[in-house]
Amino acid sequence: MTRTIDLNCDMGEGFGAWTMGHDDELLDIVSSANLACGFHAGDPSIMARLSREAQRRGVAVGAHPGYPDLWGFGRRPMQFSDEDLRNLLAYQIGAAIAVAKTQGARLSHVKTHGELGHLVVNEPRVGELLIDTVMAIDPELVFTVMATTGFEQQLQRRGCRLAREIYADRAYLDDGRLMPRRLEGSVIHDAAQAADRVAEMVDRQCIVTASGKRLSTPIDSVCVHGDSPEAVSMARAVRTRLEEMGYSIAPFAGQA
Amino acid sequence: MTRTIDLNCDMGEGFGAWTMGHDDELLDIVSSANLACGFHAGDPSIMARLSREAQRRGVAVGAHPGYPDLWGFGRRPMQFSDEDLRNLLAYQIGAAIAVAKTQGARLSHVKTHGELGHLVVNEPRVGELLIDTVMAIDPELVFTVMATTGFEQQLQRRGCRLAREIYADRAYLDDGRLMPRRLEGSVIHDAAQAADRVAEMVDRQCIVTASGKRLSTPIDSVCVHGDSPEAVSMARAVRTRLEEMGYSIAPFAGQA
Amino acid sequence: MTRTIDLNCDMGEGFGAWTMGHDDELLDIVSSANLACGFHAGDPSIMARLSREAQRRGVAVGAHPGYPDLWGFGRRPMQFSDEDLRNLLAYQIGAAIAVAKTQGARLSHVKTHGELGHLVVNEPRVGELLIDTVMAIDPELVFTVMATTGFEQQLQRRGCRLAREIYADRAYLDDGRLMPRRLEGSVIHDAAQAADRVAEMVDRQCIVTASGKRLSTPIDSVCVHGDSPEAVSMARAVRTRLEEMGYSIAPFAGQA
Amino acid sequence: MTRTIDLNCDMGEGFGAWTMGHDDELLDIVSSANLACGFHAGDPSIMARLSREAQRRGVAVGAHPGYPDLWGFGRRPMQFSDEDLRNLLAYQIGAAIAVAKTQGARLSHVKTHGELGHLVVNEPRVGELLIDTVMAIDPELVFTVMATTGFEQQLQRRGCRLAREIYADRAYLDDGRLMPRRLEGSVIHDAAQAADRVAEMVDRQCIVTASGKRLSTPIDSVCVHGDSPEAVSMARAVRTRLEEMGYSIAPFAGQA
Repeated sequence: MTRTIDLNCDMGEGFGAWTMGHDDELLDIVSSANLACGFHAGDPSIMARLSREAQRRGVAVGAHPGYPDLWGFGRRPMQFSDEDLRNLLAYQIGAAIAVAKTQGARLSHVKTHGELGHLVVNEPRVGELLIDTVMAIDPELVFTVMATTGFEQQLQRRGCRLAREIYADRAYLDDGRLMPRRLEGSVIHDAAQAADRVAEMVDRQCIVTASGKRLSTPIDSVCVHGDSPEAVSMARAVRTRLEEMGYSIAPFAGQA
Repeated sequence: MTRTIDLNCDMGEGFGAWTMGHDDELLDIVSSANLACGFHAGDPSIMARLSREAQRRGVAVGAHPGYPDLWGFGRRPMQFSDEDLRNLLAYQIGAAIAVAKTQGARLSHVKTHGELGHLVVNEPRVGELLIDTVMAIDPELVFTVMATTGFEQQLQRRGCRLAREIYADRAYLDDGRLMPRRLEGSVIHDAAQAADRVAEMVDRQCIVTASGKRLSTPIDSVCVHGDSPEAVSMARAVRTRLEEMGYSIAPFAGQA
Repeated sequence: MTRTIDLNCDMGEGFGAWTMGHDDELLDIVSSANLACGFHAGDPSIMARLSREAQRRGVAVGAHPGYPDLWGFGRRPMQFSDEDLRNLLAYQIGAAIAVAKTQGARLSHVKTHGELGHLVVNEPRVGELLIDTVMAIDPELVFTVMATTGFEQQLQRRGCRLAREIYADRAYLDDGRLMPRRLEGSVIHDAAQAADRVAEMVDRQCIVTASGKRLSTPIDSVCVHGDSPEAVSMARAVRTRLEEMGYSIAPFAGQA
Repeated sequence: MTRTIDLNCDMGEGFGAWTMGHDDELLDIVSSANLACGFHAGDPSIMARLSREAQRRGVAVGAHPGYPDLWGFGRRPMQFSDEDLRNLLAYQIGAAIAVAKTQGARLSHVKTHGELGHLVVNEPRVGELLIDTVMAIDPELVFTVMATTGFEQQLQRRGCRLAREIYADRAYLDDGRLMPRRLEGSVIHDAAQAADRVAEMVDRQCIVTASGKRLSTPIDSVCVHGDSPEAVSMARAVRTRLEEMGYSIAPFAGQA
């Protein structure tokens, strides 16, 4: 019996002449690509090129919408009305669906970026409006969601398709949230250590927190990064370890 | 027997705090709204509001994509690679589809804006890539196209759905193109005169040029403007005249 | 003996094809124009045209910098590092200085817009960095500042040139702040009432709060609006009343 | 007797989270930095940081204004009215002056970017409006100009300060223009070859064209690039060679 697990990565985060990360190498490692949708990064042609390359390699194409802030890369806190949030989400997801379609790819999932991602997890009201928006556009879309969060529970209550993810390179607090980056030990830089940790969490289907606590959860996807050569090595190490454990790396094992 | 004809108008051409035209009054007059898609005008919330209002009144919602140039309102000539043109079209059309969907509306048609519109009509290569892009996204989408142009013929050869339009307030050259705005008499300002002219062209299914020549063509839609109080009066006069002639005003009578 | 007082107004808040307010009428009423600098509104050509028109009529040209957010018109809260705030202020003020120069005008003053304006008044740290930035660029620039605020005191401590302003159409709380717009009575819509109120405050050199309290302060400028025909009438009424009181309307009477 | 020559390089061409080129290494090699001004690349904080770093090392800070097109990096042809060209130039140059001032630097020169640069050289009308604009802002500003072009002659007729530059890595046509990039041999990739060539041209004060023709001209500056590790090596090789020839590398030897 082969078990499958997904590896996801944010990609397409360049803009025009600017590049970011190592998208082409990553496409040979991961099974799901979360594509920036033009508001905080990504332009229509980057989106098209990566949709095509992903499709060609059997990598699932997802939308990674963010705040409309190229200068701030979607990481600056900004305040929007619920109406504006709904519409900027719909706009970006629709753009990604259509661009992917022209490249023969069907958009498979949605994962919010940066401050918008934080807002979705921290404000149940915003989580609901994201769900409303995505379900109105295409109820087959999968939500990529941090395992054990309240947003995961919202998605389940609403009967949405979801992929619960863990982060390969981030330490966890005992409540399942990521340890803030400013704290010592919050980010794992060693590829072997990250691979070991992912292996343990996937094997036992739990999040292991920095204090050693275990939070049981199905794990459908592992989020890796590709913004530095070291990050690419780590992504490769994680993939290799999972394959050694008998996992096949493929888009979204887990569905609601 | 009731005959139907479409009245279309560009709308949603504000941005954020800025408004343009008289969208709400126009929605009570026309049967098709061409919504700016955020690149030259229009923002996600304007697109959503107009989609909702159009849907509520039975007005068809279309995409009106343009160049990425808010400052120039999509009217400045700009040069793009074919790849970029394809992708900026797909991006905007997809955004419009999804935003409309969240408001219960199904995107019905596509009409290009400003310089992008000129390019489509003047460069068969660009017409082809617009067709490729739209057909890849949704082959049910109707192309709103100036009657008697080469682009109309391209659409027919490709088996696309199309609505042939005439302009209520613009004089025509003998080859079916619009008389350039800088020429005397190119723009009709009198509502009654515009209504008379539309009535004649629709009645005889031909374009009447400035020199009096008649170019036979099916006419599926009449394009009106709404950027001034006078334009709104003209649109109303055109509608009234068509109704007096026994036409019912409804989205896209004509299909390939 | 003629006394002078300044009337200031935000202007140039269109962008490209979009207009806002009644700039040309206002230029015949006020003595200081605060020009949007391209980040939340205003484009280089609007800035140039208004600089030229202002200069021609003896109206002082000022910079009205805001957040980089055309969609939100600089009214959405956004978080910036101090470094970014300093630099976005310098950038916009410098742009305004140079555009004004090409039209024969010398930039006379600075007044921050929208959320950036609130931040300057509410966060002394931001007030300081605005002062640092403006003084580094041109220490002759006048700061237009709400009378009786802490920022006014910061400016005085730093020896800056400043013009203390009151608002013609806004009610005041007892601590000198504006009554929030959501509260009943916060905005004055009647031109005569606004003129009476300005006359009383200027005559007695105090702010009269909604509760009737008087806060003594020199008053160097009165801020009027021009975003509606009624606003223009009010601006005219305020000017007329001040002239009847023997005031000459001229750029910045008050200096540190 | 020490002779001096300038080495200039375009810098600050990142935007927000995106970087481009090797600015910090280049600042130790060149004597003039041409800073992107926010329209095609560069943001206020990048401009500030590079102004500060340049100033600290005695490198002259210049403005490198371009078209308002982040997606196209200022390289797409766009059509602007003369009015808009004037104002977008003034806006960006003013922004650069003020940002530099807050970092203790005085803006020394102006060099236009990408398609705007081509337009200035190819359209004397645009060259004139650039001159008008810069002279109105600060007549001390130096124009960095390709040696032997018509624009150089325009600048001389107008009595402007100018620095005539040659390109270290580009082949020349017999009329003094750069050989188009698509032609074989148009770009020199070998550092030693570039250094030899620069040495010959500087030594004899002429441009040596691809066919071996010599075009006599004073040479005030050598333009190097820094967008790749190889480009940085080439810049360093050019500097070393010039120093070996007895030149001191310093901002703008040549003035009108």
